[in-house]
Amino acid sequence: MNATGYVNGEFCNLADAKISILDRGLLFGDAVYEALRVNNGRLFRVGDHYARMSDGLKALGIPVPFSASQYETILTELARRNEVRSGLVYIQVTHGATMRAHVPPKDIAPNVFAFVQTCEVPSWPRKYPGGVAVATVEDLRWQWCNIKTSMLLPNTLAKRQATGAGAFEAILVGPDGTVREGASNNVFTVIGGSLRTHPADNRVLPGVTRKVVLDLARTRGIPAAERAFGKAELFAAEEAFLTGTTSDVCPVVRVDGKPIAAGRIGPITARLIKLLADAMDAETMGDRG
Amino acid sequence: MNATGYVNGEFCNLADAKISILDRGLLFGDAVYEALRVNNGRLFRVGDHYARMSDGLKALGIPVPFSASQYETILTELARRNEVRSGLVYIQVTHGATMRAHVPPKDIAPNVFAFVQTCEVPSWPRKYPGGVAVATVEDLRWQWCNIKTSMLLPNTLAKRQATGAGAFEAILVGPDGTVREGASNNVFTVIGGSLRTHPADNRVLPGVTRKVVLDLARTRGIPAAERAFGKAELFAAEEAFLTGTTSDVCPVVRVDGKPIAAGRIGPITARLIKLLADAMDAETMGDRG
Repeated sequence: MNATGYVNGEFCNLADAKISILDRGLLFGDAVYEALRVNNGRLFRVGDHYARMSDGLKALGIPVPFSASQYETILTELARRNEVRSGLVYIQVTHGATMRAHVPPKDIAPNVFAFVQTCEVPSWPRKYPGGVAVATVEDLRWQWCNIKTSMLLPNTLAKRQATGAGAFEAILVGPDGTVREGASNNVFTVIGGSLRTHPADNRVLPGVTRKVVLDLARTRGIPAAERAFGKAELFAAEEAFLTGTTSDVCPVVRVDGKPIAAGRIGPITARLIKLLADAMDAETMGDRG
Repeated sequence: MNATGYVNGEFCNLADAKISILDRGLLFGDAVYEALRVNNGRLFRVGDHYARMSDGLKALGIPVPFSASQYETILTELARRNEVRSGLVYIQVTHGATMRAHVPPKDIAPNVFAFVQTCEVPSWPRKYPGGVAVATVEDLRWQWCNIKTSMLLPNTLAKRQATGAGAFEAILVGPDGTVREGASNNVFTVIGGSLRTHPADNRVLPGVTRKVVLDLARTRGIPAAERAFGKAELFAAEEAFLTGTTSDVCPVVRVDGKPIAAGRIGPITARLIKLLADAMDAETMGDRG
């Protein structure tokens, strides 16, 4: 099957899905994106992704080019045309194409494009059976990391550095030693029996899976604090894991080559993996009515 | 005349010049660019632009897809096809197109595209006859501003903020009050009769015009120091100006609504405007042999 892409209202062969070289996403990084999880052929937490994308577009001064239901329809149809039952759909909205100038004209129309990721998304317990290793990397990013822009070069450089060192993910650490997040995941630890993750301020992405996990923990009586922690606390943590749309809850068992929590997946992490998988199945069950 | 663009070895109608939606420049900001000045139909300081672009490509792990002479040939031909005698050519090289993943595959081919800017570049004294106003803006950018990547969203946001306040350019100021550079220009002051500009470290772009101006000053006996200065020193400066490929030497006469140097173009600035214009004319004179 040829992969199908989407550009400005039209589905097309992904190989033919192209955009002007004058696009402001391409020239300036003036664009936001979302990657959404497909489970059972349905989108998980599409409303959260739509809300975050709308917030990002407003922050960049880009008109929101679709309603929530149009957004869901486009992405669900894209998954259907690509026969994706379990996977990811990606959508990006740019500030449109026009002769290059830092200040965009007021009447410019956004460009919208989407495609499906071909990576298979296996489910627990097949996923990360022994947990993963991570490597700490200096956070070089700009100061508005809460907006999900396409300015991901420092994230890719960090991930390249971490994978070059045999790790699964880079953990971005600020100049003061604060653990912010991964290159493409939020980071949680368990310290003194309580979940800890960086507050959802300008230094981290307010991850959809991060929020789901915090909500699941709180409703199940697992204490959880949105409070920053340092590199030393990460090394000494009882447990650690990543959260992300692709990764779900991903247990971390090594940091910079040193074992965390004796190198084994901790009980709170294991419980949250199961809780997330169950929540995703429950919310994406059955046909769309 | 229809504008002509360039994509991966082919000249084409600019309206048809497109790139895959899977391009890493578009998805990650994994790309570097250059804008070069055309004067008398010839490229000014093409060697400096080629060297900076090559350095940037190496920093991002992108193979340099052309020799210095191929680079010059492509861009000179692009100017010729667009009948540009005085203007700008723009070239961008991205890390290529492949299924989206933070870590690029090793065998990926870069994408190269180019176009001419349609803006007219008037020459002194028609340009900025009374000098320009600037506005200081917090520098939100990442930490490797010395690489000329396409991750320019914070620059465009700063420029939008400055132009919204009636200014020509944004002056990016670090958290410690250090004046770094403009959104698309380097910044110079005259303090105690000596030129001052931020050192060419990771916080500023090593501008081609910046270098030309420093060289011109030094060979003409104008003292010049590459040493950072603060916002207060900018307000108290004897003179101030911007340098850039589009702006040349651009006199600054107001900062945040307050006049600099009694709101008039200073004598050292005026001298450097003339020296740069003369150097550009001398270096781009006559037909290419």
